[in-house]
Amino acid sequence: MKSISDLIKSKPWFGWVLYIFTIIIVFLISLFASSIIERRTEANLVQQVVTPIADMEPRNEIWGKNYPREFETYKSTMDTSFASKHGGSATIDMLSRYPNLVILWDGYAFSREYNQGRGHYLAVNDIRKTLRTDVPQPATCWTCKSTDVPRMMNKIGIAQFYKTPWKDMGPEIANPIGCQDCHDNKTLNLHITRPALIEAFKRQGKDITNATHQEMRSLVCAQCHVEYFFNGKEDKYLTFPWDKGFSVEDAEKYYDEIEFTDWVHPLSRAPMLKAQHPDYELFRMGIHFDRGVSCADCHMPYKSQGNVKFTNHKIQSPLANISGSCVVCHRVSENELLENVYERQDKIFELSKLATDGLVKAHIYAKACWDAGTTDEQMKPILQLIRHSQWRWDYVSASHGGSFHAPLECARILGTSIEKSQTAIGLEMEILTRLGKPFPVIPDISTKEKAQQYIGLDMPKIYDSKNEFIKSVLPTWDKIMDERQGKY
Amino acid sequence: MKSISDLIKSKPWFGWVLYIFTIIIVFLISLFASSIIERRTEANLVQQVVTPIADMEPRNEIWGKNYPREFETYKSTMDTSFASKHGGSATIDMLSRYPNLVILWDGYAFSREYNQGRGHYLAVNDIRKTLRTDVPQPATCWTCKSTDVPRMMNKIGIAQFYKTPWKDMGPEIANPIGCQDCHDNKTLNLHITRPALIEAFKRQGKDITNATHQEMRSLVCAQCHVEYFFNGKEDKYLTFPWDKGFSVEDAEKYYDEIEFTDWVHPLSRAPMLKAQHPDYELFRMGIHFDRGVSCADCHMPYKSQGNVKFTNHKIQSPLANISGSCVVCHRVSENELLENVYERQDKIFELSKLATDGLVKAHIYAKACWDAGTTDEQMKPILQLIRHSQWRWDYVSASHGGSFHAPLECARILGTSIEKSQTAIGLEMEILTRLGKPFPVIPDISTKEKAQQYIGLDMPKIYDSKNEFIKSVLPTWDKIMDERQGKY
Repeated sequence: MKSISDLIKSKPWFGWVLYIFTIIIVFLISLFASSIIERRTEANLVQQVVTPIADMEPRNEIWGKNYPREFETYKSTMDTSFASKHGGSATIDMLSRYPNLVILWDGYAFSREYNQGRGHYLAVNDIRKTLRTDVPQPATCWTCKSTDVPRMMNKIGIAQFYKTPWKDMGPEIANPIGCQDCHDNKTLNLHITRPALIEAFKRQGKDITNATHQEMRSLVCAQCHVEYFFNGKEDKYLTFPWDKGFSVEDAEKYYDEIEFTDWVHPLSRAPMLKAQHPDYELFRMGIHFDRGVSCADCHMPYKSQGNVKFTNHKIQSPLANISGSCVVCHRVSENELLENVYERQDKIFELSKLATDGLVKAHIYAKACWDAGTTDEQMKPILQLIRHSQWRWDYVSASHGGSFHAPLECARILGTSIEKSQTAIGLEMEILTRLGKPFPVIPDISTKEKAQQYIGLDMPKIYDSKNEFIKSVLPTWDKIMDERQGKY
Repeated sequence: MKSISDLIKSKPWFGWVLYIFTIIIVFLISLFASSIIERRTEANLVQQVVTPIADMEPRNEIWGKNYPREFETYKSTMDTSFASKHGGSATIDMLSRYPNLVILWDGYAFSREYNQGRGHYLAVNDIRKTLRTDVPQPATCWTCKSTDVPRMMNKIGIAQFYKTPWKDMGPEIANPIGCQDCHDNKTLNLHITRPALIEAFKRQGKDITNATHQEMRSLVCAQCHVEYFFNGKEDKYLTFPWDKGFSVEDAEKYYDEIEFTDWVHPLSRAPMLKAQHPDYELFRMGIHFDRGVSCADCHMPYKSQGNVKFTNHKIQSPLANISGSCVVCHRVSENELLENVYERQDKIFELSKLATDGLVKAHIYAKACWDAGTTDEQMKPILQLIRHSQWRWDYVSASHGGSFHAPLECARILGTSIEKSQTAIGLEMEILTRLGKPFPVIPDISTKEKAQQYIGLDMPKIYDSKNEFIKSVLPTWDKIMDERQGKY
């Protein structure tokens, strides 16, 4: 500094230059500081509650007033353009695409209609309108569809909720899957609102309240995206078959031991199991789970808007947002990643096709055996093979994204399914040959309509009944809910 | 600097302190510089050729004089302690472990002996001693075993080499798989020495000389680690069945079109295919290949000795060196990675077990059909199913590391194998029932010995013959080679 003071002493103008320069620099630094403070303040504002949220508040738009970004992205789950781009229609009609399924689910409501699932925002709309709810169903079917469920369970009790008929509960259920299902109204922390998950953990000797935040980012999804069944002829108590573990064999053993049967197949007379989307269970078998990735990491990656970084609540296939999802970890071109996923799906699909072809044949040959006058005893091992084969195929098939979450596990399961259905067919051929009967010809089931006709579904009647319900009953439900204006 | 000169002027001792300090710093910097220069010089020395290497020099120890690190690590492929640790014995006897295989390979030399492969250094020793070379074999069997092969092909011609009887070629083949197989003697560049790979590429319209260095780091391995067959009854010309592509179905179609058959199964009379280790083909179906990883990246990761970083030529399972191999890219604990691999292997093994159980039954039931007097025409579709089913199972089973390289592809292939063998069994049951015959009882084949007895192998006689060969013929081969002392 000595030399600088010397300089100022010798040339006084230099002091002024230094003075002005310092002023400019300090001014600029202050601008930056101000911007930083402002952004922080804004970020805090974002978290500020504008409207207090009541306990068990089911209305997502009320939550949305406080959390507009999360709400807006959540609301956009009504956008089905991605599915439309990749599947040909906003709601893929799986029975039209794979008419084999009609035969596999003969005697069960799934043979009437089975469409690709859509976004959370459309959950109440879609369950109201599906042909599957035109047969008598318990309110258990509502459990995963609406934020009104915890409210009603709290009001009338869990067991009473489940055993109420589905249609009786209708006027209470208006708000689709949303905020309150996963978030605490005071702290916004993730929480579990559905008893079945808590109870399943308990029976496994685990306390779900000990779950870490990262585990909760999967467990809130596992409230619904799991295999389940309705326990008890009257109770219809929602239960996860996890007591022996999370594998397909563990659940199979569980069902076999309690002799649970979803329905008896009218063709083969096999005691069938219907798999529900065991997404969480299959996800647990894959490498992403092994590496500590959660559902939200890929299906709800963060998003930036202006200065705010928030969790994107447009829950969807990561394939609709590869750059925001996969590429965060995998620095590989989007196209290459997409091809990797499609390759996995194609291979699983190839095995799934072999499995369903075998199962259709096994059911129809079993019917021929019964028609030929075979005995219960001879059919018993065959029916068990069909039960297990279809359960295993369905476990993979019903799972959303299983062929990506755990491709090898899916292939393994399908391999065992194929072995079982083909073994059943061999035994059936033996019976038919011994009884001197020809092998049945597989009927023309090349379209949904032909397959539904083969199993004897009167589809025009079913459609009429549903349309009548939509026209006459649904408006009364909406009216009741509207008149309450949130006064529960 | 002005102030420092002022200081020195005012306090002369400060000038001396500065002077001595500078000397110390410069001395230390010079020490570092010297070390860097020395290391560079040493590294250059490493690359210096001490002994010139002749064209087609087969003796690995001659190459080793110039490249001691590479040679020493190569030589340690004689160490089988890893296999021993993980399998229970230095050379796992696969027929004892899986006696089913004896039935599947009935009528083929593999039913005599099939051991887990060992290191490259032991290749000549092991092929000399296996019971599979006691039946008449062509010199084609030597192709992948020795650095003497390119020398002999150059001397007598490729076609002549293949058609020479294996035993006649014996005295020429002394040096196991080694340096010259993959390296140019002048430039040390990777090169292809086996014609079959070059020819297969040519038939696919590709010029292998256009391959990149990274591709060559897999292609030198693909000279041998591939599916192949001996084309022509007399010619026994080594050929890769890649004309239609690299998939298992591509090769199957290729073999079907040229009506190639390795042997006719004595039980089922099916025209069989024996899969050889399609390691490269299956590796191409996996994610590591997709991401541009080469064989050498994982099986020959670099190693440091003192100042030299070199490619470890102890080619082995990466599981024997997870930290040096996998962890370079995957920053995950060794135990976790190991578990991930074992999980894949277990799932593939489960499907493989279903496949072999089905195949054993299919062969034995086919024999019963023949015994019952069925016709060629009725058996034709069954034999085709058995051919394809066993081919597909063998494709996965014979591949080294396929269940890791491409687990999902392996599961897919095994799924189709299971479907085919089970379909065959069903058709066989139909035939037997129609002819009024009981289903055959699967014999006790719970040990290798029992299985070999069932298919009628006179093992004591086979062992005697081989021991006689080892005692009387092998020493004469060694003597001839020793006397030449490298004068070819």
